Amino acid sequence: MTSLPAHVGCRLEDIETPALILDLDAFERNVSKMADYAERAGIRLRPHAKTHRCADIARRQVEKGAVGLCCQKVGEAEALVAAGVRDVLVSNEVLDSRKLRRLAALAKTATVSLCFDAPEQVQAASEAAQELDVELGALVEIDMGMWRCGVAPGEAAAALAVLIDETPGLRFLGLQAYEGKAQHLDIYAERKEAIDHAAALVRQSIEAIEKAGLTCQVVGGGGTGTFRFEGESQLWNELQCGSYIFMDGEYAAIKGENGEPYAEFEQSLFVLSTVMSAAAPGRAVVDAGLKSYTLEKGMPTVHGRNEIRLVAASDEHGTLLLPPGLQLPLGTQIKLAPSHCDPTVNLHHTIVCVRKGAVEAVWPVSTRSASL
Amino acid sequence: MTSLPAHVGCRLEDIETPALILDLDAFERNVSKMADYAERAGIRLRPHAKTHRCADIARRQVEKGAVGLCCQKVGEAEALVAAGVRDVLVSNEVLDSRKLRRLAALAKTATVSLCFDAPEQVQAASEAAQELDVELGALVEIDMGMWRCGVAPGEAAAALAVLIDETPGLRFLGLQAYEGKAQHLDIYAERKEAIDHAAALVRQSIEAIEKAGLTCQVVGGGGTGTFRFEGESQLWNELQCGSYIFMDGEYAAIKGENGEPYAEFEQSLFVLSTVMSAAAPGRAVVDAGLKSYTLEKGMPTVHGRNEIRLVAASDEHGTLLLPPGLQLPLGTQIKLAPSHCDPTVNLHHTIVCVRKGAVEAVWPVSTRSASL
Repeated sequence: MTSLPAHVGCRLEDIETPALILDLDAFERNVSKMADYAERAGIRLRPHAKTHRCADIARRQVEKGAVGLCCQKVGEAEALVAAGVRDVLVSNEVLDSRKLRRLAALAKTATVSLCFDAPEQVQAASEAAQELDVELGALVEIDMGMWRCGVAPGEAAAALAVLIDETPGLRFLGLQAYEGKAQHLDIYAERKEAIDHAAALVRQSIEAIEKAGLTCQVVGGGGTGTFRFEGESQLWNELQCGSYIFMDGEYAAIKGENGEPYAEFEQSLFVLSTVMSAAAPGRAVVDAGLKSYTLEKGMPTVHGRNEIRLVAASDEHGTLLLPPGLQLPLGTQIKLAPSHCDPTVNLHHTIVCVRKGAVEAVWPVSTRSASL
Repeated sequence: MTSLPAHVGCRLEDIETPALILDLDAFERNVSKMADYAERAGIRLRPHAKTHRCADIARRQVEKGAVGLCCQKVGEAEALVAAGVRDVLVSNEVLDSRKLRRLAALAKTATVSLCFDAPEQVQAASEAAQELDVELGALVEIDMGMWRCGVAPGEAAAALAVLIDETPGLRFLGLQAYEGKAQHLDIYAERKEAIDHAAALVRQSIEAIEKAGLTCQVVGGGGTGTFRFEGESQLWNELQCGSYIFMDGEYAAIKGENGEPYAEFEQSLFVLSTVMSAAAPGRAVVDAGLKSYTLEKGMPTVHGRNEIRLVAASDEHGTLLLPPGLQLPLGTQIKLAPSHCDPTVNLHHTIVCVRKGAVEAVWPVSTRSASL
């Protein structure tokens, strides 16, 4: 039933809108740049699939040296394994025994691990693993002060590690230590300070775990805003960056070391829209609204046309404010750069891949809405 | 690949989360209440399908007397006709000739109309209709001051009506006159005043059109916040309300005539979530985040538990702030009432219908992401 916005070989101007489009050259440079960094830094890269939910992208990341992918949901893990990814971490707690059995089933054919912050969960995962006769890798998530999941760093982390180590069906691997709230601090020194603080929590936890006689093989974390700090910490050994492949308005707003715009990665993802109403002076209305991009991190920007601003959005409309004297003819294509890439991708069936003005591929967003 | 959150007959507590659930009793009362109002007021009801994107709901609305449905996108119209709806209005401008041909194809088996605010669009729609040898109904959309689509009321509306009337393949039907910005004004008198003002614009347009020798058979508009004003105006004759079936936080915030909460319709739609982390005192983390509800109109509220607030959300997490002393055990189900129903429904594959604690049906969100 659902129409596709484009077919391979068609020109950019023939894409039906609204459509999520990807600048393939910029995307490939982003993928390579992070892969090169990880290789040079001698750190494993396990990119986050929650950003793209796309098997085609996961496969490209693995081809470029990623050790596997991470994701937030069992449904995402299933889609990644179906796409051929051999090593998947659910960087999140899973409690429901039905979900844990699905995860255990995946471990029949792939290396599967997940995070823990409660004994009840250890028990439930162990039962699922034993039932399916598999072993699930286990990371203890530590609370990095982001008001989400995780046990307290130090003794509490060590106690949970010991419990996991003693529990059949689970293999203690190490720590999940993601400092999410540091990623979008706009000042470089503040991001660095946040990761310095996070590093102290990680060190304290590693020491407590070693004191209990266990070893942290894996210390995972890091994001697009801070990965160099984790990469050079000598503590983290697996980076979980996601957004670097696409970028978005939230990351475009952070600053580099000397206050310059953070331009290490390029904006590669856009919502392509078309002016469908221009009946009144001073504004134009495009055919993409709240069902094509999300607003929780602010309005999308108009790519390449700084003089135009998107000022309002309803379900299927976006209103552009035009400077005095400018008119946008009906049919004009407008590229919107999303403010937040992950939930925006999740709104679309496909990613239309464009290179040199032509569509080179149409990738399904394969695990879209796989939040179970 | 995608798992379903529930099967028919299972209990509420066995629904896998996150899941979009519908309180069927409340939903049915909402559907009936609006249908009864329209019947008593002698006004046609054409509910908006952009709210639900669900064939099962559309059919129920038609069974209760709706003359047809309206929607914003051609993909939605296709799904509605496929579901057996015989009369569909795209209450929006369509410009792309490919989309117009799809719409014309629908007119082979259903009554199909759409809105106009530009001569170029009249030309394009006429070509599609003639190519497919059908007639498309045409409403002139007038600008109600909501900074979106529509020609100026009065002479400009009449000029476009005359053009449509003279153009083959199109049948001039009347006016699209939706006052969107009035719907959520929290003070009753302000909503009334806004619709009084809108009525003047409609009257002026009808008079100009009649002066040009044409008749407005249809005057469409109205929403959940203002429908009684349009219904009693003697101007509008077709109501396009959408949200009344579900309600949301935005509508819960508006006030009735005497400042009382606007309780004409009941909250029937919830995102069911589960506490999946409770490792730190003072908070609990549920398994539903930005991929299960949208935030552009504020945070969802915790249904039936006013002492708990959802204070943060990331892709797949929602953090609940708990009052001193309260702990929420892992596995506790939490019902979140969305702040904005339309884009929240669009995030889900299914609507799980619950009555008396058991799942009675699982309805697909059939036109989900049908924004083309």
